[in-house]
Amino acid sequence: MKQLVLSALVMAFTVSACTNTKTNHEQSGVVGENQVFPHKMPETKPDFPLSAAAERMFDYPAPRVQDNELFSQFKYTRLEGFDYNGGDGTISRRDPSRPIFVNGKYYIWYTKRQTKVPPIGWNRANEATEKIPSTDWDLCDLWYATSQDGFTWKEQGIAVARPEKPALGWRSVATPDILVWEGKYYLYFQAFNEPSGTRGDWCPISMAYADSPDGPWTHVGKPVVPFGKKGEWDQDQTQDPHLIVFKNKIYLYYKAAYNKWPDVRDKYAVAHGLAIADNPFGPFEKHPLNPVLNSGHETCYFPFKEGIAAMAIKDGNEAQTMQYAEDGVNFKIAATVELTPTACGFYTPDAFTGTDYGRGVTWGLCHFINAGTSADNKHSIIARVDCDLSLDVDEPWLKSTGVWHRPEVYFKQGLGNLKNKRLKMPKN
Amino acid sequence: MKQLVLSALVMAFTVSACTNTKTNHEQSGVVGENQVFPHKMPETKPDFPLSAAAERMFDYPAPRVQDNELFSQFKYTRLEGFDYNGGDGTISRRDPSRPIFVNGKYYIWYTKRQTKVPPIGWNRANEATEKIPSTDWDLCDLWYATSQDGFTWKEQGIAVARPEKPALGWRSVATPDILVWEGKYYLYFQAFNEPSGTRGDWCPISMAYADSPDGPWTHVGKPVVPFGKKGEWDQDQTQDPHLIVFKNKIYLYYKAAYNKWPDVRDKYAVAHGLAIADNPFGPFEKHPLNPVLNSGHETCYFPFKEGIAAMAIKDGNEAQTMQYAEDGVNFKIAATVELTPTACGFYTPDAFTGTDYGRGVTWGLCHFINAGTSADNKHSIIARVDCDLSLDVDEPWLKSTGVWHRPEVYFKQGLGNLKNKRLKMPKN
Repeated sequence: MKQLVLSALVMAFTVSACTNTKTNHEQSGVVGENQVFPHKMPETKPDFPLSAAAERMFDYPAPRVQDNELFSQFKYTRLEGFDYNGGDGTISRRDPSRPIFVNGKYYIWYTKRQTKVPPIGWNRANEATEKIPSTDWDLCDLWYATSQDGFTWKEQGIAVARPEKPALGWRSVATPDILVWEGKYYLYFQAFNEPSGTRGDWCPISMAYADSPDGPWTHVGKPVVPFGKKGEWDQDQTQDPHLIVFKNKIYLYYKAAYNKWPDVRDKYAVAHGLAIADNPFGPFEKHPLNPVLNSGHETCYFPFKEGIAAMAIKDGNEAQTMQYAEDGVNFKIAATVELTPTACGFYTPDAFTGTDYGRGVTWGLCHFINAGTSADNKHSIIARVDCDLSLDVDEPWLKSTGVWHRPEVYFKQGLGNLKNKRLKMPKN
Repeated sequence: MKQLVLSALVMAFTVSACTNTKTNHEQSGVVGENQVFPHKMPETKPDFPLSAAAERMFDYPAPRVQDNELFSQFKYTRLEGFDYNGGDGTISRRDPSRPIFVNGKYYIWYTKRQTKVPPIGWNRANEATEKIPSTDWDLCDLWYATSQDGFTWKEQGIAVARPEKPALGWRSVATPDILVWEGKYYLYFQAFNEPSGTRGDWCPISMAYADSPDGPWTHVGKPVVPFGKKGEWDQDQTQDPHLIVFKNKIYLYYKAAYNKWPDVRDKYAVAHGLAIADNPFGPFEKHPLNPVLNSGHETCYFPFKEGIAAMAIKDGNEAQTMQYAEDGVNFKIAATVELTPTACGFYTPDAFTGTDYGRGVTWGLCHFINAGTSADNKHSIIARVDCDLSLDVDEPWLKSTGVWHRPEVYFKQGLGNLKNKRLKMPKN
């Protein structure tokens, strides 16, 4: 133990020496002229004492965020070509996969709900029937669409239907993502055997495979990323698969909500794990350091330089961040971002090529779950998002350092009933 | 200085030892049973190998962001009582100070522009006259208003007028913040001797003092936080003062844009420094580790627990974050936040009490610079923002982990002319 502690001390100090170059200089006491942070941005970490914040500037991809290849604004475009039955809540599309480009066109897969009535709500799962969905992702199938340009899409039909009861996924199949491996196609998705909401969002990740992106698809009918053991963070679910070929293996990132969920819903936390396999059928071995992201709801990943970049959206102390891990495991914040796309799949030409220097991304698809205006027409829509998270484009406009909303957008996020309580607060 | 350096060394080492506990475990190779991250959120950092992200969870004020006292959503309310001449651009109010509560009412100070025409624009500063403002903060005076409840305000008049030429600030006085010290009142503000835009935003921080918040105010007529020397990061400006009494001294945080500004405007970066004084007249000694924040445009600070919390809004790799520094100098990210208030001043009952355990904040005032709808009626308005960044209130609704905007808010941030370029991009 003593040796362990000593090694740890040495290692910790080494890390400290790397990331805190100030310490040795501070120790030497050399703080004289020209030791004030300069007006011209240094290209590398200055060799004199710095505050913690000034130190960190040089740990990011670039000290100026405008030069940071993992920083971007996000711009949104409504898609052409999808019918939503007038937005009456009977058709919903959500959770788009990463688009892939095959045979001269883009393909995406997504969750589609087509039911006579809109969902009745998570907390009324016990009233759900074979015709009445609990949530927006209940009673769904996986559909696919193609596009020439990424803006206008043509729905092609069902890719993977939910099977007959009691086969895995009989209640709903949802939230697909695609993998291309040795010329074949693999869809990973959530497979529900009960209306979501019954016991939280109970479902494992399953898989279907095909020789062509147009199918036909064969559903393996079993979990490929099983739950953790009782007491482990991912004991109740593996969700939101997102796949990359990295270091000649299949890296599958997934989400789980934890901390007493579903027993104490309002105490939930969300994290993301990594499972690695040598082939698409698995076994997928969970990384011993899981979880690898502490924030983000639906989260997406792409090869970037030597490692992997991730975007974490809502949920967590590090929500709304781009992150980067050279090893695909130990992510750190690369930039904070705003107005991030929900449930995004980025078009990533090198997602499955086994690249050793990822080029980044410029666009993808995301969803809005509040396309309906009330409970009577609740549904989701898929949309396009553009950005500059790429080494190959340079769009200064997308590197602007703030989003300007009209004041009305802020006032819409109003105080509501809390105003009365605030008026009664003691004044000092 | 040596003692300061030694403390910094100890602190750097301590932080390093805390944040890299994984290394000893990885080295020992002890990864066995019960070493998977648990379903129930641990209260302290687990004593087994963790990913970098899982490590960081326990460096934040709480591993679950919902429990994090430095995380909040922000809710906005339009103020009652201010006249903007129908929003025609001839009246603008911006840069509200921190509200203080004196003699049974709240007081704020702010930049007010009242000109016959709206500003003609930053890049047309050479066309500005004694009647025509360049920017929205040109040709301004410091006004003040009072309120019983923080929602409805009554403008009381000018607190500090711009003096006659050539006295410092003759062109404009703007962006005030308040200090209360030994029963007297001190306004710190930007003092312009030329239309802003002429050489960037050239101005130092000056000060005025009064025995009562109702004045009369005496302007000292000289810089109290001078520029840095040529070549130093703050060589061209000291702006946006924000004041706290901490450790029996006056801590004045300020902003400067740097990196060739104003020569190469599109390469600018923004950082924030700290200057400390024993009394309100100074001298204000700049901290040797400046800058202390690497991100944020207008930024605000308040005593929190043993240290100081800061909110950084737009600009920088750490935009949209709450930060915390136990020493008021070495800030680290405490949470990422969304839809943050611009130019905020939080009502902070313990800002000037010299508290040794700050309680945090629940509301403040901010501004919107785009209250006008075009260049013809360009002006700013002041608004109220509410939050739960306080140890003394518990509003779960304000701890919700995401902001839900209507899809239209996203589509408003559209691709514009870039769509054509994107359509022509190579497809893979």
